[in-house]
Amino acid sequence: MSELKNDRFLRALLKQPVDYTPVWMMRQAGRYLPEYRATRTKAGSFMDLCKNPELACEVTLQPLDRFPLDAAILFSDILTVPDAMGLGLSFTQGEGPVFSKPVRSAQDVARLGVPDPEGELRYVMDAVRTIRRELDGRVPLIGFSGSPWTLATYMVEGGGSKEYSYVKKMLYDAPQVMHSLLETVARAVTAYLNAQVAAGAQALMIFDTWGGILTPRDYRNFSLHYMAQIVAGLTREAQGRKVPVILFTKGGGAWLEDMAATGCDALGLDWTITIGEARRRVGSKVALQGNMDPSVLYASPQRIREEVAAILADYGKGSGHVFNLGHGIHQHVEPEHAAAFVAAVHELSRPYHG
Amino acid sequence: MSELKNDRFLRALLKQPVDYTPVWMMRQAGRYLPEYRATRTKAGSFMDLCKNPELACEVTLQPLDRFPLDAAILFSDILTVPDAMGLGLSFTQGEGPVFSKPVRSAQDVARLGVPDPEGELRYVMDAVRTIRRELDGRVPLIGFSGSPWTLATYMVEGGGSKEYSYVKKMLYDAPQVMHSLLETVARAVTAYLNAQVAAGAQALMIFDTWGGILTPRDYRNFSLHYMAQIVAGLTREAQGRKVPVILFTKGGGAWLEDMAATGCDALGLDWTITIGEARRRVGSKVALQGNMDPSVLYASPQRIREEVAAILADYGKGSGHVFNLGHGIHQHVEPEHAAAFVAAVHELSRPYHG
Repeated sequence: MSELKNDRFLRALLKQPVDYTPVWMMRQAGRYLPEYRATRTKAGSFMDLCKNPELACEVTLQPLDRFPLDAAILFSDILTVPDAMGLGLSFTQGEGPVFSKPVRSAQDVARLGVPDPEGELRYVMDAVRTIRRELDGRVPLIGFSGSPWTLATYMVEGGGSKEYSYVKKMLYDAPQVMHSLLETVARAVTAYLNAQVAAGAQALMIFDTWGGILTPRDYRNFSLHYMAQIVAGLTREAQGRKVPVILFTKGGGAWLEDMAATGCDALGLDWTITIGEARRRVGSKVALQGNMDPSVLYASPQRIREEVAAILADYGKGSGHVFNLGHGIHQHVEPEHAAAFVAAVHELSRPYHG
Repeated sequence: MSELKNDRFLRALLKQPVDYTPVWMMRQAGRYLPEYRATRTKAGSFMDLCKNPELACEVTLQPLDRFPLDAAILFSDILTVPDAMGLGLSFTQGEGPVFSKPVRSAQDVARLGVPDPEGELRYVMDAVRTIRRELDGRVPLIGFSGSPWTLATYMVEGGGSKEYSYVKKMLYDAPQVMHSLLETVARAVTAYLNAQVAAGAQALMIFDTWGGILTPRDYRNFSLHYMAQIVAGLTREAQGRKVPVILFTKGGGAWLEDMAATGCDALGLDWTITIGEARRRVGSKVALQGNMDPSVLYASPQRIREEVAAILADYGKGSGHVFNLGHGIHQHVEPEHAAAFVAAVHELSRPYHG
């Protein structure tokens, strides 16, 4: 493997000195880029694109060719794991993901196996290997997975949801079935992430998109507990470097202390908490990633710059900050606005370092 | 007007002693009740039901005939105010509210007037008067409105939204236009709520359903600021009794101190914060309303009882707690489960009082 030419992202996650704050954007390979839409059309369906390592590599690299981002993230979907468990995933136009065989009972849970990352999920590992080769050491590659709770919401609901009726009914009425499901998914995710590291991922991120719909007690028992179990089971070093792990619970601002106690290296933040407050609370234990409202990218480049400046000032001096949006970039954002965002982070962050 | 036979709800909001914890449910007059669905069919569209004072009264009273609830809430919709401003509201099957004339520019904002509560919105005041007469003092009647920010999200998006692109673009790119819109809506809401009190409402609640999508700074400037302005402009006494005001920001758990500082009497809580923590933080200033996850009502009556017991224990001894769900009751809940919930609150709360 080639030597890493830009390791600011990895260094910031470990709170080692950097010359400027590294930046990437959640969903940076996505529909806001015309070149992404072109590759997507060529690929066929969204899952066809995920399952084609060459094309997944192509879209992973597209934003790096446009913007001087400090990290690449594997192009994939969090639902690859439940798909590999045999739930029959498809994506319908406008309605999002649908599982033809949702998990609703103890019997359904008992039938689930842990997929072989180099078997049913080999296409993901092939994508990781292809991307690492093509990246040629430009920036580190992030591997990722959904959290067990977040994956379970889709698996039980049979797709996206507004009210989470089925998964909440299972949680409240049959908690032992829910725990058994989460246990299986946690083992699957651990194997999946470790295989990504073996294939070349240099950092890992766990997306807990739906942890924030839980009560504090249920968040600890049904989401955080399984993320902590995964963190404890991960390969934390590869090719002589530490592989940092980032936990991100959307709407989890109240629970940062608990999240930091899992042994992860960094927390992802959405925009409903200020990064200064988060640093005061958990900055001695973990690095922080975030947290500009992605909707700021609808505003003018000047306004974007002001918002970047405010977040940098709020975090303050020193390493331990990876700049990002607080959620994925929206599809109707102008690429030029993303460019202004990345440039502002690099330029305005220098005085806070060295 | 008849004398109030059950004033536990009003007393609890003012932290005066009660013999048990009063309870009501957000959206208690709603689709989970077969008798509601029957009246709704008779009425025609959802807005036809809202605009018919006799039928609005009928559905307001339905849950009280089933369950020994301690408060009634006016049956209406938060979008009556923007509708009266001329935005052309309709409800489409499955897609929710749609405004044919969304507010997108300074010109659009400039055209908006403050509706006369006894003019375009007279049907709401007639409903309040009818309900007060028919309630005959059984329990207090709650009047309500959406918060200016929440109403603005619908007005600018032209309906419900997932990404809030238009309203966020206005907020970040044209904040002065957004402030001008919120200023107008705040004046309209103040007049609307005061008219509800004049018509007979005995407590008021402001629903800030979408305050939680904002950054802490923007929440203060674009949502809380206008709610505080409304609270300061409200009639706080009627017929010799105080008219308590409840503020509810969904996802606002981090901002309770700021909310309590507006001068309101109580805060509504969703289930993502524990009521014990909320009481420790702001219980000396305000009463608290909430906060069981409405999805618990999908579980067995025994499980519902356990959850009620846990929340009562978490709040602890003394007045200042109105039991409620943390959000509206879901449409697929069995009415018997709602009955179990109400009974559990009344029965299990007695040891915490007197």
